[in-house]
This record gives sequence, structure tokens and C-alpha cells, in this order.
Amino acid sequence: MAADPERIREVVNRYVELVGSGTSEEIVALYAEGATVEDPVGSEVLSDRDGIRAFYAGLDGLEKDTRLVTVRIAGGAAAFHFEVGTHVGEQTYTVTPIDVMTFDDDGLITSMKAFWGDADMVSA
Amino acid sequence: MAADPERIREVVNRYVELVGSGTSEEIVALYAEGATVEDPVGSEVLSDRDGIRAFYAGLDGLEKDTRLVTVRIAGGAAAFHFEVGTHVGEQTYTVTPIDVMTFDDDGLITSMKAFWGDADMVSA
Repeated sequence: MAADPERIREVVNRYVELVGSGTSEEIVALYAEGATVEDPVGSEVLSDRDGIRAFYAGLDGLEKDTRLVTVRIAGGAAAFHFEVGTHVGEQTYTVTPIDVMTFDDDGLITSMKAFWGDADMVSA
Repeated sequence: MAADPERIREVVNRYVELVGSGTSEEIVALYAEGATVEDPVGSEVLSDRDGIRAFYAGLDGLEKDTRLVTVRIAGGAAAFHFEVGTHVGEQTYTVTPIDVMTFDDDGLITSMKAFWGDADMVSA
């Protein structure tokens, strides 16, 4: 029994919101024990909680805003397109990944893969 | 050695174009031997060429148009959002999936997963 689509939608919305204005601890709490993170796809797969925490801790303290562009949910999994803008002084660096997540029955994230490349980051 | 990002981009563009106006044979030719298709995610995974051919043959003869909305390429894989409009009489049924594909070194598709649900189809 996969998580309910509406539950998955809530978790995706919450994830995008927390990447914008939450703490790494709050983000890590959305992940199941034993979850994996591959961001971007092709980089090292993080499979332990400390590694995942350290990955998101890199975002702590940065001024960011995020926006969910669109989400598709099927078979207990989600693919979603979102934007992350990071503000550094006068500059804003915007990256717009497509993330794919799987979930356990409780709606905790069991895997995340982020599809983006250098070409998908712009600064203005 | 994964396929080159530019090669992957070409194949994704060609795939979307062929879903719109190609034949099932032309689409199947983009797939590697042993490729898998899961469309939508959560449905039966097709893992033989005849099954994949039969899946796309269901589209033959329908009047369709397609549009690639956006594509992200990373680690020899792609995630892309596209639209398929199918015209039946006065009606147009539009479905807007996010597909995830992996590729072999030659840029042939080794797997396809399509993320969409009933909520992502509209008729007008």
C-alpha cells in the first residue's frame, strides 16, 4: 500500500517550502530511515542520515525562495519541477530542477533524485 | 561512459515529436534491446519489445500534437515535462506527463517511466 496521492502532494509542497525557508533538520525529518539522495543525478548517492543532513546543512543560512512549478504523482512516487532562488548580495542564482521522489506508506521520502545540470542554473 | 547530454536532448526532442506525429515503429526504434517502459508509474512494467511496440501501437492512427515543455539532463538520464493533445472529433484530450528516461552509450533509451495521473488529463 503506497502513500495516498494527497499525502504525497502535501509532502512535496512541504519539501519545496522547507528548501526555501526551513532548516536542514526539518528537511531531513521528511526522509525515511535508509533513504537515498542523488542530487544531481550522476553524483554520489547519499545513503546515510548524516550524509543527507550534511547535504542540506549546506543550505542553512542562505537566503532562498522556492516555487513549485508542477508536480505529477503516480504509483506512490512523484516527479516535480521547482525553482530555487538563492540570493547572495545583489545576485540571485536560480536553479530549476526536476526531482523524482519515492515514498513509504507513511509518506516519508525513501529516495530523491534531482535532475539538473549547469545549464539549468542562471544568475541575475 | 553515458550518452552525451546533447545526444540525450536530441533523442528526447525526437521522442516527443514522434509521439505526436510518428509511427509506433519509429518510436520503438529509439529504444535499446531489453529496455523497460512503465507508463504510468505504478502500472505493469513492459520489458519485451513486443509489449513496448503494442503499447505505442495504441497511439497509431490518432490525431495528436505534442510539445516539449522543459527537459533536465543529468548523469546520462533525462526528466522532461511535455504535453500530448489527442483530437477526437471536436474534443481534445490533453495529458501532460513528466517522463524519466535512462540511455545507453549510443543514446538509445534503456528505460522510460511516465509520471501522470487522471488529474493530469483534461478535455476541452
